[in-house]
Amino acid sequence: MAANTFGKIFRLTSFGESHGSAIGGIIDGCPPGVEVDFDFLQNELNRRKPDNSFFTSDRKEDDSLKVLSGVFQGKTTGTPIAFFVENKDAKSHDYNSLKEVFRPSHADFTYYKKYGVHDYRGGGRASARETLSRIVAGAFAKLVLKKYNIKIFAFTKQIGDIKFDDDYKKIQISDIEKSFVRCPDADITKKMLEYLKSIKKEGDTCGGIVKCIINGVEPGLGEPVFDKLQADLAKAMLSINAAKGFEYGSGFNAASMKGSENNDLFNKDLSTKTNFSGGIQGGISNGQDIYFNVAFKPVPTIMKPQLSYDKNGKEVVISPKGRHDVCCVPRAIPIVEAMAAIVILDHLLRFNNYRVIK
Amino acid sequence: MAANTFGKIFRLTSFGESHGSAIGGIIDGCPPGVEVDFDFLQNELNRRKPDNSFFTSDRKEDDSLKVLSGVFQGKTTGTPIAFFVENKDAKSHDYNSLKEVFRPSHADFTYYKKYGVHDYRGGGRASARETLSRIVAGAFAKLVLKKYNIKIFAFTKQIGDIKFDDDYKKIQISDIEKSFVRCPDADITKKMLEYLKSIKKEGDTCGGIVKCIINGVEPGLGEPVFDKLQADLAKAMLSINAAKGFEYGSGFNAASMKGSENNDLFNKDLSTKTNFSGGIQGGISNGQDIYFNVAFKPVPTIMKPQLSYDKNGKEVVISPKGRHDVCCVPRAIPIVEAMAAIVILDHLLRFNNYRVIK
Amino acid sequence: MAANTFGKIFRLTSFGESHGSAIGGIIDGCPPGVEVDFDFLQNELNRRKPDNSFFTSDRKEDDSLKVLSGVFQGKTTGTPIAFFVENKDAKSHDYNSLKEVFRPSHADFTYYKKYGVHDYRGGGRASARETLSRIVAGAFAKLVLKKYNIKIFAFTKQIGDIKFDDDYKKIQISDIEKSFVRCPDADITKKMLEYLKSIKKEGDTCGGIVKCIINGVEPGLGEPVFDKLQADLAKAMLSINAAKGFEYGSGFNAASMKGSENNDLFNKDLSTKTNFSGGIQGGISNGQDIYFNVAFKPVPTIMKPQLSYDKNGKEVVISPKGRHDVCCVPRAIPIVEAMAAIVILDHLLRFNNYRVIK
Amino acid sequence: MAANTFGKIFRLTSFGESHGSAIGGIIDGCPPGVEVDFDFLQNELNRRKPDNSFFTSDRKEDDSLKVLSGVFQGKTTGTPIAFFVENKDAKSHDYNSLKEVFRPSHADFTYYKKYGVHDYRGGGRASARETLSRIVAGAFAKLVLKKYNIKIFAFTKQIGDIKFDDDYKKIQISDIEKSFVRCPDADITKKMLEYLKSIKKEGDTCGGIVKCIINGVEPGLGEPVFDKLQADLAKAMLSINAAKGFEYGSGFNAASMKGSENNDLFNKDLSTKTNFSGGIQGGISNGQDIYFNVAFKPVPTIMKPQLSYDKNGKEVVISPKGRHDVCCVPRAIPIVEAMAAIVILDHLLRFNNYRVIK
Repeated sequence: MAANTFGKIFRLTSFGESHGSAIGGIIDGCPPGVEVDFDFLQNELNRRKPDNSFFTSDRKEDDSLKVLSGVFQGKTTGTPIAFFVENKDAKSHDYNSLKEVFRPSHADFTYYKKYGVHDYRGGGRASARETLSRIVAGAFAKLVLKKYNIKIFAFTKQIGDIKFDDDYKKIQISDIEKSFVRCPDADITKKMLEYLKSIKKEGDTCGGIVKCIINGVEPGLGEPVFDKLQADLAKAMLSINAAKGFEYGSGFNAASMKGSENNDLFNKDLSTKTNFSGGIQGGISNGQDIYFNVAFKPVPTIMKPQLSYDKNGKEVVISPKGRHDVCCVPRAIPIVEAMAAIVILDHLLRFNNYRVIK
Repeated sequence: MAANTFGKIFRLTSFGESHGSAIGGIIDGCPPGVEVDFDFLQNELNRRKPDNSFFTSDRKEDDSLKVLSGVFQGKTTGTPIAFFVENKDAKSHDYNSLKEVFRPSHADFTYYKKYGVHDYRGGGRASARETLSRIVAGAFAKLVLKKYNIKIFAFTKQIGDIKFDDDYKKIQISDIEKSFVRCPDADITKKMLEYLKSIKKEGDTCGGIVKCIINGVEPGLGEPVFDKLQADLAKAMLSINAAKGFEYGSGFNAASMKGSENNDLFNKDLSTKTNFSGGIQGGISNGQDIYFNVAFKPVPTIMKPQLSYDKNGKEVVISPKGRHDVCCVPRAIPIVEAMAAIVILDHLLRFNNYRVIK
Repeated sequence: MAANTFGKIFRLTSFGESHGSAIGGIIDGCPPGVEVDFDFLQNELNRRKPDNSFFTSDRKEDDSLKVLSGVFQGKTTGTPIAFFVENKDAKSHDYNSLKEVFRPSHADFTYYKKYGVHDYRGGGRASARETLSRIVAGAFAKLVLKKYNIKIFAFTKQIGDIKFDDDYKKIQISDIEKSFVRCPDADITKKMLEYLKSIKKEGDTCGGIVKCIINGVEPGLGEPVFDKLQADLAKAMLSINAAKGFEYGSGFNAASMKGSENNDLFNKDLSTKTNFSGGIQGGISNGQDIYFNVAFKPVPTIMKPQLSYDKNGKEVVISPKGRHDVCCVPRAIPIVEAMAAIVILDHLLRFNNYRVIK
Repeated sequence: MAANTFGKIFRLTSFGESHGSAIGGIIDGCPPGVEVDFDFLQNELNRRKPDNSFFTSDRKEDDSLKVLSGVFQGKTTGTPIAFFVENKDAKSHDYNSLKEVFRPSHADFTYYKKYGVHDYRGGGRASARETLSRIVAGAFAKLVLKKYNIKIFAFTKQIGDIKFDDDYKKIQISDIEKSFVRCPDADITKKMLEYLKSIKKEGDTCGGIVKCIINGVEPGLGEPVFDKLQADLAKAMLSINAAKGFEYGSGFNAASMKGSENNDLFNKDLSTKTNFSGGIQGGISNGQDIYFNVAFKPVPTIMKPQLSYDKNGKEVVISPKGRHDVCCVPRAIPIVEAMAAIVILDHLLRFNNYRVIK
C-alpha cells in the first residue's frame, strides 16, 4: 500500500528505525543529468543534526551520507538513487526500562496495537530520526529546483508564545541560519533562547510554528481536485512527526475575513496586488509566492516524572533518560523545506504531462 | 497520475464540470455484500444542495442520484460502483460575459495556465459542484463504517467572528441539522444568521470553521510515516474548495503549550485522561475520538464590483450575476464528513493487511 | 487497490456488468487540446460489435457512445473523460437457469469464491462486453498517437489450425477490415470461414492467434526494470478475456535459436538489419516496429451439453441458450489494438518525465 | 512513476547497477510477525549465483545479504525491509572498450536514447545482476506463503531444441536442484549439457523455456479485469531480462483447440477433471495448480566477432571479454519463482480486502 513512499513521479521510499543499523531510502524518478553536489547534500543533513547545544538531544551521530546507486560520473542517471546513513550512537540500553511501558503521547501504544510488535528502542520507526531520509530526498529535489530558479526557505515563526510576525519579504534569508533557533530576528531569537532555558530548567518542553516560503514557481503546478497543491503540501507537513496543523495564505484568519478583504485583485501583468491566496488558486500555483505555516506540538518526552501503564496494566512512573530536544521547531526547519521541495518537484514533473501536445 | 482519484483501497475517481452534462464518479474497492440504502445516499446529497434560502446559490437542481453498476439485488458486489447526477439548471449564459476574464481569487487564471483551455462556464471543474462525487462516495463509506460502529459528524464552529467553542461532547448531534447554519447551539445560530444577513446586504461574503468528530475508531488505523492518519485527513480537507487550514487535536494551540500540558496520560484501560492528541499518536489511531478543524475562506464571488483583467490585459469591471453562496461553511459540513469517511474506511481496509498472519 | 484501473498517467478506470444498465469508464490523464473525432470513436466501438453474422453472438446493441465530461468545444480539456454505453438488449432471463450453476471454464465459480456474490446474468463483469470501455479509451489514445505518427493495427494470424504466416510488412492494412475474419489474405479468410462453419455445425467453438504491430514509436519508451514496455504489453494482453499467451519479437521461437541468429545487428543509422527484438531492447523501444502475438482460447460456452454442478453440489446438464461467438478472435482485434494504444500512450507520457532537464 | 517498484501491497522497490557499489531494494508491506530464516534467504541468493561452471559467467561474488531494517528479534516488524548485496568483483575495465559502442541486442542504445546517459559498465541497470533484488523479495514472500501451504517451483523445460515434456506432476521436486541445468530428468539433463558444450565451443549462446508451478492457492485470488492473476504473472515474467513470451494453462496450444477439448469439467467437489485453465478462471484462482511457461532468448553477448557501431556512427567489431552465460535458463529458475511468489503474495494480501465485511 506504499505506506512508506511519498510522491508520484519523484518518489521517496524510506526505511529504517532509530536504533536499527541505518536510516535511508530510495529516490525513484529523479531526472537524469542533474549534477550532484555532495557537499550540499551533507550540509542539508547536518542542518537537522542535534547541535549538541543543551536544547537538543545529545545523541552524537556524524550522519555521513552514503549513496549506493543512481549517480555516475557526478550526475544522476535517471535510475533509483539508494542512500543511507548509519546509526552509530544508538544507545538502546537507555530504553530497556521502557520495554513494556507505553509512554504518554508517544507512538508506543498505537504501534503495538497496529503491528502486534513493539520496537521499544528509541521509538523505532516513529523516531524523528526517520526524517533523515526526507532531508536527503529533499536535497536532491532542491538540486533540480535550482535549475528552475525555485527557492525554498523556512524559519521559526513562533516558540511558545514568542512570535516573529514580520512580513517575510523583509527578512534576510542568510539571517535564518545565523540564529540559534532559526528565527531571522536577533531580538526575538534572544527571547526565544531565554524561554527555552526556562523550559529546560523545568524539565519541560514546548511547541512552536514554522513558516515556509516557496519562491519562483511558475503558474500551472498542482491538480484541480484531490491533488491540489495545498492538499499535497498539507499531507507532506502533517506527515512530519509532531506536526499538528497546517494553513496556507490567509489560513485560519480567513475564517474571520470578508470576500472583499480576502480576494487578491490582479495587476495588469496578472500578478496579484495582495497574496491571501498563498500563491495557489483552485489547487494550482498562480506564480506568486507560496507560503504556509506548520504548527508543532511540544516534544512528548519530558524530564518530569509521569505516571503511565505497561502492557499488563501495571502502573509505572516514567523518568526518561534518552536524549531529547526541548523544542523540535529549529530542527524541523530543514525537514519542512525538504518535504516542500519534494512536493514542488513532483508537481513540476507532473505538469509536463499537460504540455505534451503541441 | 491519478489526479482525480482519492484513496488507496477504497478509491473514488471523479469526473464532471459544473456546466457539463453530469457530475459523477466511480468507486472502486467497496467491499461486497454491503446493503445499499438509497434513501440515505440521496439524503446525503440533499444535505449539500443549495436550500434556496437567501444565503446560498439559487441554482435549482434535484441532484437525483443514478447508480449504473456495482449493486445487485440491493447489495454491493465488490465491483466498481459508477454513479452520476445530471446538471439540469446550468445557466451557462450567465457566464458568457466572463469568457475572457480572470475573476479575482478564482481558478480561471490558473486553469488557463495549466491546460491552455478555459472552461469559463461556472468554473468548470473548479466549481464546488464537483463535491457531489465526494458526497456519494462518502455516503457509501458511511454505510460500511456503520457496520464497525464508527460515527462521523461535523458542525459549524465559526462564521466570521462568531464562534461556538463548547466541548463537542455536550452537543446533541440531532441539533446540528436543525440549525439553519448547522451549528448545534440555537443562540449562536441566531447570531450567525444575523451576521450572514448583514454580509449579504453588503454584497459581500464571509469565511468560517468546521469541526469534525470521528467516534468509534479502534486503535491501529493509519500508517507510521507518510500516510499518517492526520496526513491523509489533512490532504482530504485541503482538497475541498475554499479550505485554507487544518488542525487536529490541540492544533495550532499546541505551539504555545508545554509538554506537561499537552501530553495525554493513560488510564488503566489505556484510554487517555485528556485528548490533545486528537485520537492519533505517531500517525495511528489510539481509540479515542479523532477530531479536527477546517478553516474556509470567504467565497470569492462577491456582489460588489471588482476590477480585473482579461486574457488580453484589458481592464474589466466584474459584477457577477451567477448564483453563489454568502458563506460556504454550512454546505461544507457534509463534504467534510464525506472526505473523513473515505479516509477512515480506506485506512480500515488497509489495516487488514497487517492482520493477515496468525 | 485500483483493480479496475489501467495505466499510470493515461489511466482508464472501467465499470459495468454485462446485464447492468451500462458499461463505461473514466479516462484520467488525457492531454488537453486534442480534437475529438466522435465518428472515429463510434466506429471503433462498432468494430467490436457482434456483426450479426452467424459466427458471433446475436445480441443486438447499438453501442451508442455517450461522453459526459472532459470535452469542451470539440477538444479534450485535460480533465477526466467519463463515458458510457447503455445495455439495452440484455436478456437476463436467458440466464435464469444458470442462477445456481457453475459453468465449466467460466468465471462463475471463481467470482462466487472471491466475492461471496454471484451475478449470474451473462457473466456480470466477467463478460467480454466489459471490453467496450477499453475500446473507447484506446480510441482516445489513438487520437493522441496520431499526432506522433504512431500507427497500431492487428489482424487474425490463426484460427484453429489455419495460419496466416506471411511477413506483416507485405500486407495491405485496408485488407484486414475487408475480411470477415480480419485476416488480410483472401484465400486464408475463405479457409477460416469454412472451418468456422464446420465448428458451428458441431456446436463447438475454437481459438486462435492475433498479431499486432505498432509502427512509428521513437526510441526511449518503456522503463528498464519492472515496467518494461513488453511487460506492460503482456499484462495488457493477458488482461483481455480468453487470452492465454503473449510473445513479442522472436517469442517462443527464441528458445530454439542461437545468439548469433537472434541478435539484431545495427545499420549505420542505428536501425537494425533484423528485428527479432520486436522493437524493444532492455524494456525500452529502439525505434523499430514493435510486434507481438496473443493466443486466445476457444469460447467456453459451447452448444453441446456439458455436465456440471450447482452450488449445492447437484449435477446439472448445461445446454446454453445465451448468445455467444464461435470464435472470439476477429472481435478481439480492436481490443488488442486498444490495449496496445493505451500502453504506448501511457509510456509516451511517462517518457516526458525524463526529458525535463536541459 | 514507480518504474522501479513492483506489487501493490507487498511491494519491492529495487536499486543498483551491475558495476555500482551495491544491488538491493526495499520491501514495503511485508506483514509483521513473520520469522525470518536468514539461511533460506541466503540460499535463494546462492541459487542464482554463477556457479563457476564453464556455462555461466565467472564473475565471483559472494552475494552476501545485508538487511538494514524491518526485522527485530528475528521477526518482521511490518515496517520496510531494506537490504543490499555488495558488488565486489565488478571488473569495469573489461567494459572500457565498450564506452562508445552499442552492442547488438543489448540495452546500450535504448538506455542512451532514454536517459541521454550511458552507464557502459556491464550494462548498468540492464544487467541481470539487478534480479538479485527480486530473489530477496521473493524469498521473503516465500516465507509468508509457507504459512499458507503455498508451494512454488520451476524447472528447465527446454534448452535449444531439447525438451522435457513430461507431466510436471510426475517429477520429484528435489530432482530439479540435483540437475546441473535444473531439469528434473537425468537423461534430458545429459543431452542439454552436451548441447551447451557444443554451443560454448562455437562461441555462441542459446535460449530455452522455464516452466513454473504454484500449488496450494485457494480460490479467489486475482482481480476480474485489469489485474487478472495471469496478467500480473505475465507482467512479472516479461519484466525478467531476456524473457520473450508467457503462456499459462493450455497457452498457445489453445489456439488450435476446440471449446469441447479445452473446457475443464468440474468434479463434484468443484475441483476440475482437467486443468487447461492453468488454475485461473476470469482472472481469479480456482484452487487448481497454477502453471505457466516463460520463453527466454539466447544471451546476446556471444564470443563471436560482431559488427556494430558507436555513438559517432563509426564501425566497430565487438569481441566481448566480459563474463557471460552460455544460456540464462538454469539461473532464471529462481528468478521466475521469486517473481511468482511476489505476485501470489501480493494478491493474497489484496484478497483480504474483500473479506472484511461479515
